[in-house]
Amino acid sequence: MAETENQSKPIETDAVIIGAGPVGLFQVFELGLLEMKAHVIDSLPRPGGQCVELYPDKPIYDIPAVPVCSAQELTDNLLKQIEPFNPTFHYGEEAQELKKLEDGRLYVRTSKGTEFLARAVFIAAGVGSFQARTLKVPHIDKFEGTQLHYKVKNPSMFEGKNIVICGGGDSALDWCLNLVGKAESVVLIHRRDGFRAAPASVTKMKELCDQWEMQFEVGQVTGFTEENGVMTEVRVTGADGVTRRMPMDHLLVFFGLQPKLGPIAEWGLKLERKQIAVDTARFETNIPGVFAVGDINIYPGKKKLILSGFHECALAAFAAADYVFPEKRILLQYTTTSPKLHKVLGVETPHFD
Amino acid sequence: MAETENQSKPIETDAVIIGAGPVGLFQVFELGLLEMKAHVIDSLPRPGGQCVELYPDKPIYDIPAVPVCSAQELTDNLLKQIEPFNPTFHYGEEAQELKKLEDGRLYVRTSKGTEFLARAVFIAAGVGSFQARTLKVPHIDKFEGTQLHYKVKNPSMFEGKNIVICGGGDSALDWCLNLVGKAESVVLIHRRDGFRAAPASVTKMKELCDQWEMQFEVGQVTGFTEENGVMTEVRVTGADGVTRRMPMDHLLVFFGLQPKLGPIAEWGLKLERKQIAVDTARFETNIPGVFAVGDINIYPGKKKLILSGFHECALAAFAAADYVFPEKRILLQYTTTSPKLHKVLGVETPHFD
Repeated sequence: MAETENQSKPIETDAVIIGAGPVGLFQVFELGLLEMKAHVIDSLPRPGGQCVELYPDKPIYDIPAVPVCSAQELTDNLLKQIEPFNPTFHYGEEAQELKKLEDGRLYVRTSKGTEFLARAVFIAAGVGSFQARTLKVPHIDKFEGTQLHYKVKNPSMFEGKNIVICGGGDSALDWCLNLVGKAESVVLIHRRDGFRAAPASVTKMKELCDQWEMQFEVGQVTGFTEENGVMTEVRVTGADGVTRRMPMDHLLVFFGLQPKLGPIAEWGLKLERKQIAVDTARFETNIPGVFAVGDINIYPGKKKLILSGFHECALAAFAAADYVFPEKRILLQYTTTSPKLHKVLGVETPHFD
Repeated sequence: MAETENQSKPIETDAVIIGAGPVGLFQVFELGLLEMKAHVIDSLPRPGGQCVELYPDKPIYDIPAVPVCSAQELTDNLLKQIEPFNPTFHYGEEAQELKKLEDGRLYVRTSKGTEFLARAVFIAAGVGSFQARTLKVPHIDKFEGTQLHYKVKNPSMFEGKNIVICGGGDSALDWCLNLVGKAESVVLIHRRDGFRAAPASVTKMKELCDQWEMQFEVGQVTGFTEENGVMTEVRVTGADGVTRRMPMDHLLVFFGLQPKLGPIAEWGLKLERKQIAVDTARFETNIPGVFAVGDINIYPGKKKLILSGFHECALAAFAAADYVFPEKRILLQYTTTSPKLHKVLGVETPHFD
């Protein structure tokens, strides 16, 4: 949808939120209470951000009044909470450009070319956008997309081929189990005989090794051999310090995701230790109308806690109203008692008298 | 318990929290994560503070990740969340004295004489302690406790008596319904023919009026007649401007509770507009080791939101560690991943590898 809109002209909106993690989602809520509409951009294909990417099922204990929840439950509850405000999500797009226009509005463009004109922008990008950790072997990057893969787009290309998979997490194990029987051979390489993956997957992988269906080696890829522009083998240095040659057609590397600040660093924002400096009354950056909330910001006393991000969202929303409704004086009202807030939330006001 | 302890010596503890509303309760949690033990004082007989007193059942929509809950549910969830830290509650006690001792510790004494020696004190007293709104009729206060009542301790004293009840909320209506048939006569006086009380109670009251079991008059008590030290009648000024005499034995007034800063104003804390001034990095007052969190504090950008109080608790807890553990460097850890926090929470750490 975003792409077709883009064919015509920029999307005009009150607010653009960069990041659909818990804090970005709650920013939609706080804006919605003040009747500001939001578009949300995230480089990931789904909401939840870092939390859901890194530990979807691990319990979180410090969300106030939620004794325990998983990152997925937290995300689901926030999505439910913001439903009345019907935000538009642009997943799988990275915010690449942000600039202040002469008319005071903010221009945002994503990696897919979607353009926005907004009165306020909220950077809720957590620790940045997530990118696969790469294999640190000189010059091997030239095979990325042909023989070196950090993600799998088309599994059928591995059928009948000799596959080496690196990593010790769920992605590495899952692709081993998936490709055994389809690939000609599957070798798993991990730096130690211990895995972050689900125990059941590890057990299954070891069974397959016992049955000679695949092979597991403790070690690290430290080099490769190239013939006529084709990578023919990798060199694997084992725990014993010995380097062995391992012929292969494709190398799949799953070292997890790592966050990068990315294009945000180029927007002219005042940074401190790779975080965006904000004040504690408005959580506004050095660019008027641009706010930073959650783990990406920094101020005296800052702790990278989700509950702090929630507070920051609330104050930033009030501050943004200065730009979106310059004529209006915004009063704090309570969801418990305000008929106006009940109206924007789409709930009934209990009637007394 | 508090009273018997008091016979011997002050209670020594890491932290005293004044106020058992949502923010005071969450302060227990944030202190607990950092291994600080807390005693909690509240003038009300139960936890939940203003929220539970004023609107126990009305829905709240702006607790992050909790799309809707009542004040009672919010309180119950917070109580569950702080269970692992086993705080000691002192209900029905008002904090009356706070002073810094020469050894750096803080001394707190309550209205019941309970004394504490703490390294840190957290004032989470919301809008203050709740006291009954009084009837503004000159000199009528001398009958308080004999013929003028703001709360009912012993309902049997009204049996066979002529009772006048003032107010339009649940307390006024409930006591009308309760005393009809026991008292000689019951008259309800409210300034208008509209009620904040539950509609079912209002309907029932009107039925009783139709059946001549009780009487309802629109008006306000504006005076009284005294004979030999006894109040014999009140004067009720009606909507028509006419003042009528109404003989009675007891006058029950339920005008709701109103918050008062009370003794807190006398502790030498820097106030701004009747709120306690704090910084935004530590939420500390002008008295080192004394923190103010939630609706009672003020700082640039302050909004009186529960979610802001939660954030303030977290940062104040880290700051308090400077006094409780002066030797220790406190690092931010996450409940999702920290085995140490799992230990203090009493939950199992998922085991990988």
